[in-house]
Amino acid sequence: MGFAKKEHEFLSAIGLAPENPGGFINGKWKASGPVISTVSPSNNQEIAKVTEVSMEEYEEGLRSCNDAAKTWKSLPAPKRGEIVRQIGDALREKLQHLGKLVSLEMGKILAEGIGEVQEVIDMCDFAVGLSRQLNGSIIPSERPDHMMFEVWNPLGIVGVITAFNFPCAVLGWNACIALVCGNCVVWKGAPTTPLVTIAVTKLIAEVLEKNNLPAAIFTAFCGGAEIGEAIAKDTRIPLVSFTGSSKVGAKVQQIVTERFGKCLLELSGNNALIVMDDADVGLAVRSIFFAAVGTAGQRCTTCRRLGGKILTGGSVIESDGNFVQPTIVEIASNASVVKEELFGPVLYVMKFKTLEEAIELNNSVPQGLSSSIFTSKPNTIFKWIGPHGSDCGIVNVNIPTNGAEIGGAFGGEKATGGGREAGSDSWKQYMRRSTCTINYGTELPLAQGINFG
Amino acid sequence: MGFAKKEHEFLSAIGLAPENPGGFINGKWKASGPVISTVSPSNNQEIAKVTEVSMEEYEEGLRSCNDAAKTWKSLPAPKRGEIVRQIGDALREKLQHLGKLVSLEMGKILAEGIGEVQEVIDMCDFAVGLSRQLNGSIIPSERPDHMMFEVWNPLGIVGVITAFNFPCAVLGWNACIALVCGNCVVWKGAPTTPLVTIAVTKLIAEVLEKNNLPAAIFTAFCGGAEIGEAIAKDTRIPLVSFTGSSKVGAKVQQIVTERFGKCLLELSGNNALIVMDDADVGLAVRSIFFAAVGTAGQRCTTCRRLGGKILTGGSVIESDGNFVQPTIVEIASNASVVKEELFGPVLYVMKFKTLEEAIELNNSVPQGLSSSIFTSKPNTIFKWIGPHGSDCGIVNVNIPTNGAEIGGAFGGEKATGGGREAGSDSWKQYMRRSTCTINYGTELPLAQGINFG
Amino acid sequence: MGFAKKEHEFLSAIGLAPENPGGFINGKWKASGPVISTVSPSNNQEIAKVTEVSMEEYEEGLRSCNDAAKTWKSLPAPKRGEIVRQIGDALREKLQHLGKLVSLEMGKILAEGIGEVQEVIDMCDFAVGLSRQLNGSIIPSERPDHMMFEVWNPLGIVGVITAFNFPCAVLGWNACIALVCGNCVVWKGAPTTPLVTIAVTKLIAEVLEKNNLPAAIFTAFCGGAEIGEAIAKDTRIPLVSFTGSSKVGAKVQQIVTERFGKCLLELSGNNALIVMDDADVGLAVRSIFFAAVGTAGQRCTTCRRLGGKILTGGSVIESDGNFVQPTIVEIASNASVVKEELFGPVLYVMKFKTLEEAIELNNSVPQGLSSSIFTSKPNTIFKWIGPHGSDCGIVNVNIPTNGAEIGGAFGGEKATGGGREAGSDSWKQYMRRSTCTINYGTELPLAQGINFG
Amino acid sequence: MGFAKKEHEFLSAIGLAPENPGGFINGKWKASGPVISTVSPSNNQEIAKVTEVSMEEYEEGLRSCNDAAKTWKSLPAPKRGEIVRQIGDALREKLQHLGKLVSLEMGKILAEGIGEVQEVIDMCDFAVGLSRQLNGSIIPSERPDHMMFEVWNPLGIVGVITAFNFPCAVLGWNACIALVCGNCVVWKGAPTTPLVTIAVTKLIAEVLEKNNLPAAIFTAFCGGAEIGEAIAKDTRIPLVSFTGSSKVGAKVQQIVTERFGKCLLELSGNNALIVMDDADVGLAVRSIFFAAVGTAGQRCTTCRRLGGKILTGGSVIESDGNFVQPTIVEIASNASVVKEELFGPVLYVMKFKTLEEAIELNNSVPQGLSSSIFTSKPNTIFKWIGPHGSDCGIVNVNIPTNGAEIGGAFGGEKATGGGREAGSDSWKQYMRRSTCTINYGTELPLAQGINFG
Repeated sequence: MGFAKKEHEFLSAIGLAPENPGGFINGKWKASGPVISTVSPSNNQEIAKVTEVSMEEYEEGLRSCNDAAKTWKSLPAPKRGEIVRQIGDALREKLQHLGKLVSLEMGKILAEGIGEVQEVIDMCDFAVGLSRQLNGSIIPSERPDHMMFEVWNPLGIVGVITAFNFPCAVLGWNACIALVCGNCVVWKGAPTTPLVTIAVTKLIAEVLEKNNLPAAIFTAFCGGAEIGEAIAKDTRIPLVSFTGSSKVGAKVQQIVTERFGKCLLELSGNNALIVMDDADVGLAVRSIFFAAVGTAGQRCTTCRRLGGKILTGGSVIESDGNFVQPTIVEIASNASVVKEELFGPVLYVMKFKTLEEAIELNNSVPQGLSSSIFTSKPNTIFKWIGPHGSDCGIVNVNIPTNGAEIGGAFGGEKATGGGREAGSDSWKQYMRRSTCTINYGTELPLAQGINFG
Repeated sequence: MGFAKKEHEFLSAIGLAPENPGGFINGKWKASGPVISTVSPSNNQEIAKVTEVSMEEYEEGLRSCNDAAKTWKSLPAPKRGEIVRQIGDALREKLQHLGKLVSLEMGKILAEGIGEVQEVIDMCDFAVGLSRQLNGSIIPSERPDHMMFEVWNPLGIVGVITAFNFPCAVLGWNACIALVCGNCVVWKGAPTTPLVTIAVTKLIAEVLEKNNLPAAIFTAFCGGAEIGEAIAKDTRIPLVSFTGSSKVGAKVQQIVTERFGKCLLELSGNNALIVMDDADVGLAVRSIFFAAVGTAGQRCTTCRRLGGKILTGGSVIESDGNFVQPTIVEIASNASVVKEELFGPVLYVMKFKTLEEAIELNNSVPQGLSSSIFTSKPNTIFKWIGPHGSDCGIVNVNIPTNGAEIGGAFGGEKATGGGREAGSDSWKQYMRRSTCTINYGTELPLAQGINFG
Repeated sequence: MGFAKKEHEFLSAIGLAPENPGGFINGKWKASGPVISTVSPSNNQEIAKVTEVSMEEYEEGLRSCNDAAKTWKSLPAPKRGEIVRQIGDALREKLQHLGKLVSLEMGKILAEGIGEVQEVIDMCDFAVGLSRQLNGSIIPSERPDHMMFEVWNPLGIVGVITAFNFPCAVLGWNACIALVCGNCVVWKGAPTTPLVTIAVTKLIAEVLEKNNLPAAIFTAFCGGAEIGEAIAKDTRIPLVSFTGSSKVGAKVQQIVTERFGKCLLELSGNNALIVMDDADVGLAVRSIFFAAVGTAGQRCTTCRRLGGKILTGGSVIESDGNFVQPTIVEIASNASVVKEELFGPVLYVMKFKTLEEAIELNNSVPQGLSSSIFTSKPNTIFKWIGPHGSDCGIVNVNIPTNGAEIGGAFGGEKATGGGREAGSDSWKQYMRRSTCTINYGTELPLAQGINFG
Repeated sequence: MGFAKKEHEFLSAIGLAPENPGGFINGKWKASGPVISTVSPSNNQEIAKVTEVSMEEYEEGLRSCNDAAKTWKSLPAPKRGEIVRQIGDALREKLQHLGKLVSLEMGKILAEGIGEVQEVIDMCDFAVGLSRQLNGSIIPSERPDHMMFEVWNPLGIVGVITAFNFPCAVLGWNACIALVCGNCVVWKGAPTTPLVTIAVTKLIAEVLEKNNLPAAIFTAFCGGAEIGEAIAKDTRIPLVSFTGSSKVGAKVQQIVTERFGKCLLELSGNNALIVMDDADVGLAVRSIFFAAVGTAGQRCTTCRRLGGKILTGGSVIESDGNFVQPTIVEIASNASVVKEELFGPVLYVMKFKTLEEAIELNNSVPQGLSSSIFTSKPNTIFKWIGPHGSDCGIVNVNIPTNGAEIGGAFGGEKATGGGREAGSDSWKQYMRRSTCTINYGTELPLAQGINFG
């Protein structure tokens, strides 16, 4: 049986059907929860149906994942890297189809859909190299015949809860690193992008199968808040990586930390772009355009404040889909609406006199994700990135607020949650650290030269 | 007016008097809260009186500290290191007196009192070197004419809440690192060791004064739970470092994370020491002795479980002071009392057959601070420190569970809270990280090769 | 026209013919020097003919390579990583054929031939990840409004001179790292393995062509000592990586350092394997077998000394090929023949009484490449790897002297030359380091607080 | 008996006398070589007499140093750090006197003399922190039940040959790091600054004595080229750190590398300062003044080329001392005299049109030590420090060519020798690296998945 629409037939090439069970549990696709329709936000028409998982299926998935964790963490890290390399190659082969699906189901333009899948592939390549560099340290001991090690070991299972705006890139940031670090992954995708969840999982599952590894190393659920809450509460999951609003993130954090689990949060942004009077204006204008309306204003790094009456736009466009006119609003900097994240192509414009004032405006919101300045002065650049500068996790100069590279650490401060994903030493969050002191002599000297008894 | 007891007169050499105001606020000693007596736990007799701070004084302290933060973070890090070096020298000069005070007010033996102060001195020396090594990274960008930086900037203010068992070492771990990282410090010492709080603060204050720096860079409060709660709630304090029980720690964490602040928790331990049949028995016995009764069993790294009827001890000793007989209890490993931290020289003894069983016992408690194994087999050592080994933050071999060196990171997993203090890259917790991308060209290429509009 | 022997026909699938020009110069295969026959060492029969390059062709190659260097170092490092990834994939596709060629032309068994090519592939994967981690540092400056950077930039051209025993792995160690670091590569393979040189170069050339990059980024020469000397003398080549004997290496070093160029030397080994009386004997015996006769005793890490009269072997085997009986010789430790590298499956056996004596024997030769101990005592392990232990670059425990992984740094001390290739921070040798101090303020403070004029 | 001149009497407070034996050999001051006069270059009058060492004394010194090496490298690194901390404190106490001596004997102004001693003190503080951070790595192995370590061990003895222009700072860079790394130090100071050599050695000797350590850990010689050559040839000295001219440095390198020893070279500079038309001219002028005539033009980082007829100066000043008028010469950039280092306050001025041309001029000399640009454009800054920018080891922006901080690595490329001293990871040059693979299982898997026999 084929898809209702001819233009959706490409989906069968990436393992999708008009009706899809939404749980990948111990190597089998199954689901007995509610059946939902997934629609294209550009015309609100159904693409396919997906059955979500029940709580029983969640439990079965976790049990098998927990078993698989023993096998996976025994595999040497470079061997785990080889698996992730094969995942990257599998995605590379289906890049166009997957990119088209992301565009179709999430609503961003095709170039961005393909770019998002490319980012997962880049993460795989990066993680392969990393699998030989998850280095611990040998630290000089102050005691003779002692060695001090800092050893990094896997956590076991990492829960990944992703949002609709980046339906596969965020999974890529987390899963690639989590896997080479020796963790199994439990993924709950966004309820509105289940086809991306299923298609990506199928490719990963094939690689695991080809290598005779337990399929439950990667466990995926299509489902709603109930499944998210179960992950947050589950003591078998030492780390929960959550992407979403600050409000829900705060709740997740409370549940997870109550059981002394760890959270990796990527929450709301409210990102300002400052244009100094010495800026290259052409560069700034092009950047503002991409920063404000790229991904239809639904990146968490989307520019929302530019360093109020509606100057242009402001209407919902009459069509079958969910289109909003790109909107620019001139506003006083202390208006309370400015402090909240509005998920759409809406840009508030504020004025300032000095760099200090501009930085103060930038830092005055509860969120701390991304920020940009346009300037041609070294003094301004280095102040902006220094101790008195932007308090965000992403601090750009002469580029938009969005469009991060995977080599750096992605994430933000304050109400954005403090987590860091992708590059740099983000991997450390996916492992536990032991400080090991080994006495290989026959004496028992104490630290700080204490002479005890 | 002198101290009531002649043997307490040495306290005047470290700035203490029979009556002491317990707040160091904007460079002045003052306090208008309740007056408490501080007593020696070895005989329950009063040493001196201390006035605790009021909430008004807390507020005054925080306001001045917040102002001082602007000055302190502007100072180049190596200059901050020079201040910390001078603090170390000031402590070195008073090492004997301070050590005696720690022993007197906290109750540990003199050698351990001096050892604890020495640890703060070691931390100062370590932090001086660190002040030239708080390195960010320059990361290769995938875009031409772009540079990617990872920059570390100060947080502003670090709140440090310490416990009675290490009344100055934990302050040292936190303050030395926090200060070189460019943060002001707000310290609330334990209510039962206010003299240590005051004496250490006085030495630090002198160094700041000699260097013409704002005294409020270091702000200290003697006070109770009310002050601790105020610190936890205060949005001016981005990082709260708390040492204490898992129960109170969980509450602190909830308050701090609700406002999207950060926590650094050092909570309860419940530490096991495993003796394999191939162990050097002499070494093991000496270690168990130090691990179980050192610091009167009141280190969080104290050994509490050794691989139940009371075998020896178990009584409160009749005397003026708070003495408990060192106690050894043979017990079944699944008894629920084993899962809780008991702050005294009490040791539970359990039996096991295989290494796997011993590790399972070790990992079966909610806490995850410290653990030791005694063995002469390489295979056992490397399994113990590997992915299937101890799940603690401190994983020792042929040494006791306690007695950490400052070069490594100190802290534990699970209900122990997950924080890491002292050495390794612990300093990163005291700074905020920015991923900065600088475009110094005239084009605007996007990451992942996206071609937008 | 086909190969003379049917079993050599597989060579045409990797771009080889019965007659081959041996220079890859500015994207063209050409050569006008002497014509040589390459033979299989197992039967001394010709495989194919290769024309070596003339000095004019060397000069033409270098000129075009020097031009290409400007383009290659302008490419962002992660883009260079993508090229190396494609090279890895190209090798992966031809793994069996290339492995067979290595076995045929060099003489090692097929499993080792394939293993050697796999090592180059592993290096490519590793280098891809590295291309986003060639990190410089941002170092705290002691001066206000100053930033201190440590920046790593490409050298330009790296000359790689390899030996016959690893005709492609050593190229892989060097070229993968050199390329992602932004350097062009000039390769002179061993005179007896020109087909490996040509086949590997052809695969790399295809990748460069497919990506529209200058072919001269990779320049290869089949040739003799004259070409090696030209590379050593060439001021356009800031780094020469040489693998070969200590004698020739010393000469290369002298020529290169005279012009203040840099050398990366992998010279002779003379590797001991110590079996302690507490060793797992089964493990030791299997290891000695692989260490002593693997690669027909022609690894530089081959075990040559074990913890004299000929006990077994010692004869040249009468056959068409170059076969030598594996030979074990019992010998006094001070015999001078022990101090030289003998390139064949010959093993000297010496006796010792204590660990100290064994280590002294191990360290008593001029070379310092590889060394192993077999023991079951932690004390012995940690002494062996510590300041009083083995002085080699490779220090193994319970494994043979040979068979290194790419994640670590490969190389040796003393007469072995001191270079380090493959993993760890070996990449730093392929770049130049700048310490950059940027003043972005308006004052001119001096370091060390100097007040000048 | 006192000094001939009253103003030299302060020298007795730092252990100097009118006549001084110039060898510190196994804890004793002795010397039987030629007697020399040390004079003040400002008036050519004698300060004191020094007896240089004979070759017999050299041999005695080396033998005792070699013995002491066993003790020193057995001491845990943090304990070695404590010794270096005490050395720093000893220098701090005598800072004024030592600074005055440096100024008197070398000829630089007092502020620079004190600054130089301060730099040694800074190095001590830095090295103390480093003594707990000489970290090796634990690298993931691709083989199950294997661990891979990168371990850093001491070299044994480091020979340090310093020049007259920085008679104690260069010793500080080398000795502080060498000592915490576990090496003994053999120091030959410049023949014209023996009093600095003796005074600094005396302070270090006192610290060693107070700590009951073998005095020969630090061995010092006043002497000429003969002693320098002996150090270069001595196989007991694995690393020779040499500061001086490129010509002598090349010779030292040849001797040392012939015996497969290692060199750390700090040779000639020929440093350019580029002033772009967008520069802050006031800042540039002040910088040029310090860069060109600071230390009387006798820093190796002295600015010699700005970015020819004599414009001013050019005469030897008639006086008792060695004074030269600061001299500025306008010159064509291709004049051959420009390519050589002239040790005095002489500055060549050249003109250029574009940044590219200026960089080409900067890079056109054989030396590669230091370089500066003055500009207010980010694009110029980042090009200057990038792959197409300055090829020097020190690359400054808006500060002079001289005046380095200790936190970065100091040294230069090309004929400057390639060594790096002081901060960053310079310490690695003072240690030897072992890649250790430990098999703690019972199987013998091979790397690259090879199946052997």
